[in-house]
Amino acid sequence: MRTALTDLLGVEAPLVGFNRSPGVVSEVSRSGGFGVLAATMYTPEQLDAQLTWIEQQVEGRPYGVDLLVPGNVAHGDPADLLASLRAQIPDEHVRFVDELLERYEIPARSRPHEQGGELLANFDATGVEALLDVVFAHPVALVANALGPPPATMVERAKASGVAVASLVGKPEHARRQLDAGVDVLVAQGTEAGGHTGTITTMVLTPEIVDLAGDAPVLAAGGVASGRQMAAALALGASGVWCGSVWLASHEDITPDSVKRKFLSASSSDTLRSPARTGKPARQLRSAWHDEWERPGSPAPLPMPLQPMLTGDAWDRIDEAAEAGHPGATALESYYIGQVVGAFAELAPAAEITRRMIDDCAARLGELGRLGAESAVRV
Amino acid sequence: MRTALTDLLGVEAPLVGFNRSPGVVSEVSRSGGFGVLAATMYTPEQLDAQLTWIEQQVEGRPYGVDLLVPGNVAHGDPADLLASLRAQIPDEHVRFVDELLERYEIPARSRPHEQGGELLANFDATGVEALLDVVFAHPVALVANALGPPPATMVERAKASGVAVASLVGKPEHARRQLDAGVDVLVAQGTEAGGHTGTITTMVLTPEIVDLAGDAPVLAAGGVASGRQMAAALALGASGVWCGSVWLASHEDITPDSVKRKFLSASSSDTLRSPARTGKPARQLRSAWHDEWERPGSPAPLPMPLQPMLTGDAWDRIDEAAEAGHPGATALESYYIGQVVGAFAELAPAAEITRRMIDDCAARLGELGRLGAESAVRV
Repeated sequence: MRTALTDLLGVEAPLVGFNRSPGVVSEVSRSGGFGVLAATMYTPEQLDAQLTWIEQQVEGRPYGVDLLVPGNVAHGDPADLLASLRAQIPDEHVRFVDELLERYEIPARSRPHEQGGELLANFDATGVEALLDVVFAHPVALVANALGPPPATMVERAKASGVAVASLVGKPEHARRQLDAGVDVLVAQGTEAGGHTGTITTMVLTPEIVDLAGDAPVLAAGGVASGRQMAAALALGASGVWCGSVWLASHEDITPDSVKRKFLSASSSDTLRSPARTGKPARQLRSAWHDEWERPGSPAPLPMPLQPMLTGDAWDRIDEAAEAGHPGATALESYYIGQVVGAFAELAPAAEITRRMIDDCAARLGELGRLGAESAVRV
Repeated sequence: MRTALTDLLGVEAPLVGFNRSPGVVSEVSRSGGFGVLAATMYTPEQLDAQLTWIEQQVEGRPYGVDLLVPGNVAHGDPADLLASLRAQIPDEHVRFVDELLERYEIPARSRPHEQGGELLANFDATGVEALLDVVFAHPVALVANALGPPPATMVERAKASGVAVASLVGKPEHARRQLDAGVDVLVAQGTEAGGHTGTITTMVLTPEIVDLAGDAPVLAAGGVASGRQMAAALALGASGVWCGSVWLASHEDITPDSVKRKFLSASSSDTLRSPARTGKPARQLRSAWHDEWERPGSPAPLPMPLQPMLTGDAWDRIDEAAEAGHPGATALESYYIGQVVGAFAELAPAAEITRRMIDDCAARLGELGRLGAESAVRV
């Protein structure tokens, strides 16, 4: 299965595995695919440790990193930025979340809340450069930006290091902007994908992006969790697939078991695209959390990054309590997942998922070739 | 391209063309595909005339019919039913539509409103049998039901005549119900399709339906308007495709030019799934009509069939005025269409669209076969 993507990255099969668990990333790269670490929550020191560990596992095989940096980075003191953002969260919203947790009887955390500040600190110019210093000190083959066009500094440093730059797009206008920004690989993300998505489906979006990408490889994302869906993406003109959700059914994925259990029993109708977690529409498992935010009289979710700042501690408490089997927390529990969740049957090793997708795709391509070669038969 | 569908229907290629224009249906069947007439608005006499005309064109080639009949037909006087339904339309809704048409300065119709009554009359037992009498007096190869499981009488009469029965499904639960009802062909309709759709995309839904359909052929519908999308549907395990939107870019389609012009300039982001036209969520071109119904303070759309009864005359007036170039009517003008509308470049003959899809699909299948046959190459 040689495509523009396998040539660019030097991998066996055009299957990119996107995940926040270093164990998934390394297993995908070790099994013929290309692992990409979703490194949106790390300090530079944490990121360095993760990439070092991955390298020990992949033994020279290529892998990549996905960062969350804004196209225009802020300047000034991160603490001032954080304080200014906190001041924008209305009391009504704070009360709503407090009351919601109380009604579901969610206990306080046993450990203090850790995240939020670091994530935002990465948004200032110094934080971005420090992260990029770490990335480019490692032999990554691809760097991606999770939201919007990559900042000029990321593109310049990637080009200087011979590292490919990828970016996610949800509509044709995005793709034009990304190509102008110097992106090498476009990831056409359909609405069925987990996480932040637009409204156009993979079936419609992929050929649209392929047609305007010129020589740039296009990966299809959203709705791809099997070899036949991978073959369908190639049929649409993609040079490969970018899969996120499928790994949440792997043993190596670090998502809490309480969430994974909900995924295993979910159907393809059980996701929704909602701003109630991040402030931007993101596909996730529907839970009591969304019912509460959608109830008449509930406040509208705040824009990013205020909504995650408002609710970050609540989610830590929900995750911890759900993990202990707390019923209210279990009802609220959710995470980002695509519509392919309906196909999850049981947890499996990431390497097995990778090999099965690649082998099934190759077999399906053979069947399609034979179907095309058969002459028309009238019965 | 021999599949379970081409064997069942005796056609060259597994491409079903679904349209309300007899000229499109006959051209699809004449060009290697299988035309299906969307015959949801006809009296038995009108339907008989349409099918007779199609038969003269297709010269023995197979074609099908799609009806809109409820699973449980009503008994009693159609006029009573109509009066009872009319009484359920709130004055607030009537005033809202009147005020909307006034604000957009939509003129009265030059001809009186004709439809609505007949459509509903078909819903009673006598009306359904009269339509089925017409259908089975013609050599149709397939009969489909547009909404929900077909009534038992349709399945029984089809089996007795050796006619295949098809039905549209938007989620796995629907498919199980349809198979239980005796349906032979399942059409897995993704959310990107025009008309009444669910929320699951074609990429996700198609393999789900294939896995539970057993030997029954599954057609993918939604997002399929090109040979590569047709090849993708086959990769997903479908035995063929069921295409509706693509024909609205054909010369033979009877949709008003005012609507077709809006389609040609639309992007894939310009559709929405809304109940504001039929009372059930249906994908259509977004227009000022939807903006008005979504405005705060606007009444909620009524359930089917009340919403089309409320707005049928308004749409006739909008269509007629838009056709004459009226600006307010042009702003409101809309029709059912899938996300593939973004790929419409110009109008073409239905035969050319059919041949291009079949030939491009065959070529793409060949390419995929060669891609699968290439050994893995590490760069």
